[in-house]
Amino acid sequence: MTTFDLRRRFAAEALGTGLLVATVVGSGIMAETLTHDVGLALLGNTLATGAMLVVLITILGPISGAHFNPAVSLVFCLNRSLPPRDLPAYLVAQFAGGIAGTIAAHLMFALPVLEVATKLRSGPAQWFSEVVATFGLVAVILAGIRFERRTVPWLVGLYITAAYWFTASTSFANPAVAVARSLTNTFSGIRPVDLPGFIVAELLGAVIALALMGWLLKPEPVQQYQPLKAEP
Amino acid sequence: MTTFDLRRRFAAEALGTGLLVATVVGSGIMAETLTHDVGLALLGNTLATGAMLVVLITILGPISGAHFNPAVSLVFCLNRSLPPRDLPAYLVAQFAGGIAGTIAAHLMFALPVLEVATKLRSGPAQWFSEVVATFGLVAVILAGIRFERRTVPWLVGLYITAAYWFTASTSFANPAVAVARSLTNTFSGIRPVDLPGFIVAELLGAVIALALMGWLLKPEPVQQYQPLKAEP
Amino acid sequence: MTTFDLRRRFAAEALGTGLLVATVVGSGIMAETLTHDVGLALLGNTLATGAMLVVLITILGPISGAHFNPAVSLVFCLNRSLPPRDLPAYLVAQFAGGIAGTIAAHLMFALPVLEVATKLRSGPAQWFSEVVATFGLVAVILAGIRFERRTVPWLVGLYITAAYWFTASTSFANPAVAVARSLTNTFSGIRPVDLPGFIVAELLGAVIALALMGWLLKPEPVQQYQPLKAEP
Amino acid sequence: MTTFDLRRRFAAEALGTGLLVATVVGSGIMAETLTHDVGLALLGNTLATGAMLVVLITILGPISGAHFNPAVSLVFCLNRSLPPRDLPAYLVAQFAGGIAGTIAAHLMFALPVLEVATKLRSGPAQWFSEVVATFGLVAVILAGIRFERRTVPWLVGLYITAAYWFTASTSFANPAVAVARSLTNTFSGIRPVDLPGFIVAELLGAVIALALMGWLLKPEPVQQYQPLKAEP
Repeated sequence: MTTFDLRRRFAAEALGTGLLVATVVGSGIMAETLTHDVGLALLGNTLATGAMLVVLITILGPISGAHFNPAVSLVFCLNRSLPPRDLPAYLVAQFAGGIAGTIAAHLMFALPVLEVATKLRSGPAQWFSEVVATFGLVAVILAGIRFERRTVPWLVGLYITAAYWFTASTSFANPAVAVARSLTNTFSGIRPVDLPGFIVAELLGAVIALALMGWLLKPEPVQQYQPLKAEP
Repeated sequence: MTTFDLRRRFAAEALGTGLLVATVVGSGIMAETLTHDVGLALLGNTLATGAMLVVLITILGPISGAHFNPAVSLVFCLNRSLPPRDLPAYLVAQFAGGIAGTIAAHLMFALPVLEVATKLRSGPAQWFSEVVATFGLVAVILAGIRFERRTVPWLVGLYITAAYWFTASTSFANPAVAVARSLTNTFSGIRPVDLPGFIVAELLGAVIALALMGWLLKPEPVQQYQPLKAEP
Repeated sequence: MTTFDLRRRFAAEALGTGLLVATVVGSGIMAETLTHDVGLALLGNTLATGAMLVVLITILGPISGAHFNPAVSLVFCLNRSLPPRDLPAYLVAQFAGGIAGTIAAHLMFALPVLEVATKLRSGPAQWFSEVVATFGLVAVILAGIRFERRTVPWLVGLYITAAYWFTASTSFANPAVAVARSLTNTFSGIRPVDLPGFIVAELLGAVIALALMGWLLKPEPVQQYQPLKAEP
Repeated sequence: MTTFDLRRRFAAEALGTGLLVATVVGSGIMAETLTHDVGLALLGNTLATGAMLVVLITILGPISGAHFNPAVSLVFCLNRSLPPRDLPAYLVAQFAGGIAGTIAAHLMFALPVLEVATKLRSGPAQWFSEVVATFGLVAVILAGIRFERRTVPWLVGLYITAAYWFTASTSFANPAVAVARSLTNTFSGIRPVDLPGFIVAELLGAVIALALMGWLLKPEPVQQYQPLKAEP
């Protein structure tokens, strides 16, 4: 397998997170521009995000691993898939790329370069939603890598498609994307003051998933069916 | 192939059924919160459920087989894919995991932990729908395993996507999920008193599929085209 | 490859066409029951049909080839993929299975066993739509088999997903399905008197595709780039 | 690998671009006929276009490469995947095929053979959208070919699915399709006077992608982790 140097991995993480956020924010703006039905708006938002995740993870995964998500990079650091010395570069790329994605979406829709979100997303139910959402995301990634590595882009895209609908928070599940979404006052925004609750919940969900899947995915030797033997 | 011990298979069945029910119930709540158009609500419900099924069967199938469904476990017992002594653990995991899924969905949406459903789902047309839905599900699984094992997660996700729309009952097709859905008084609920009719219909559909596919999938030797031979 | 006898191939064609029609008709009834927005109704109808096609062709293709369509069987007869002596059985299975599918959908939705459709679908634009729809379907099948055989179920499901929307007739593209749909007076119905126009158009489109793809898919030797040689 | 002669490659490019445009234009007409919700109309338009792209690139890619897009052919010329002497034939096929696609859509929906679009699509935000849209498309194609060649049809279909929603221009990203869409006064139309802005933006986005991906996809030797050695 080819190895890419850190500059290219940095660029891949920034480009991927940027396009992901541009998709989340941009499709939200498009949706609320075109329809008054919020269910339909979420459907458009979901379809675009899920589709883009499959694409970005497929084309950038071979370069950087396609984390696009500090919670995921942290997990890969903890399970030794990512050298700790690379973590800072990954985090900077993700946060900076994400904000650039919001800017790109705003420019495409002729909005101010950056805004401050006013959409309230807080409270125990929202936080629990983020724990569940990120738990599921990390569990899917870890089990997917173990059993069906080439399908991981699809699994992540489909998981987020579902999670947009089954969690009350519409599944941010990503601290860098959350920060980037605090800078748009549109469909997908989140008040900056609500960020800490979301980010703590996301990291908690990620760590729970790492622990549980560490146990679940480790097969133990099982006693085979054995014909009874005459000799002791 | 690695073999996982029964504790991990139990956990996989519980986790999978739980996430499946959380998706069905949670996306139903999200949908009816966001839109007044019931067709659109079913669309969101469908998309989330179909996507999640692909994910869960892919990542948990290698551990437990990813039944998440007592009707499926029963069929695999009857065709000797699941040792009968493992059946009780699978059933307990599925029913308990399913109820936990309803609880999780309720907590995410700030609803009471459990409710009693009041949505009526009964009568011959509904029961016939469940027979057809479960017949189709089991037929898809059995033929999928036979011809295209790695595609089974997709086939099940796509089949349920279609079945949510072409059956009048929106295709429960799963006794454990049905029980879990009797404990939510939201979009996806079913009155507890309607459970027996649904469960009997589901088991009936499963058994019919097992019988029919047992015949259909068993090739018989066919006479080949033979050039006429001169000698007798 | 295993060869299945004609009885099983007959059963596979009947079962597949039946489930396909049950999906088309059933999801149409569900859609018009749940929403007043015809665009949304078509979306539900599309999603169910496309998903079911992928499933049915995957699981029944290895048995019968999964034609489910007299126009397709005819094309395979003409290009010698289906022995002519098997054609009558295929056609009977498709028409009978299709009608059984309408009956099943009606029973699931508590409608009369069979109805006579009153929905007008006629005129040159509709007929041209059916020519295009069936041309595309057969072209996709023939090229798909040539280049990417295992993907054909997905190609057909995706093609019909598109064709429901880009043709004015919503792409019947199948004489057996058209006949079955003339027996339901719901979303997906077609007046019996409009059947001949549709069926002629469909067969015409199929034959045009066979001719064009026969030419397009046949590579001719091309002169290779050759380095100039010194010796003659 | 079989090589197809230029006549067949020309036919494949014309047929593919024609069916693509027929899908874009036809599904737009269908959508605005069936619903008054513009978000829903875009959803139908998106679904049909994304699905058709997967199909067309899969079945025609082995013949002509399935560009269907002058910006893509130009990029492949610049990176030496397409011999320059073949470029004119590709461009003629794409523009002529695209216009034929508009004609086919109009005939299917009983509209005048060709119209002049009156839908305004102009201004810096729209142009920037087209730069981003085409940048993304070309980046996806180049990286997809490099890492996951057989998945490219899916990547393109999914990318356009997302791009219809996250760019303000709904992602034309294709000069031949843009010209063909200037000849329909329906949902997907664009005023002829707005074409130059779109086409320049598209070519700009394509060239930026070629430059960036040329750098990003080229791995540089990286220093391996080396155990410390005793000898200097």
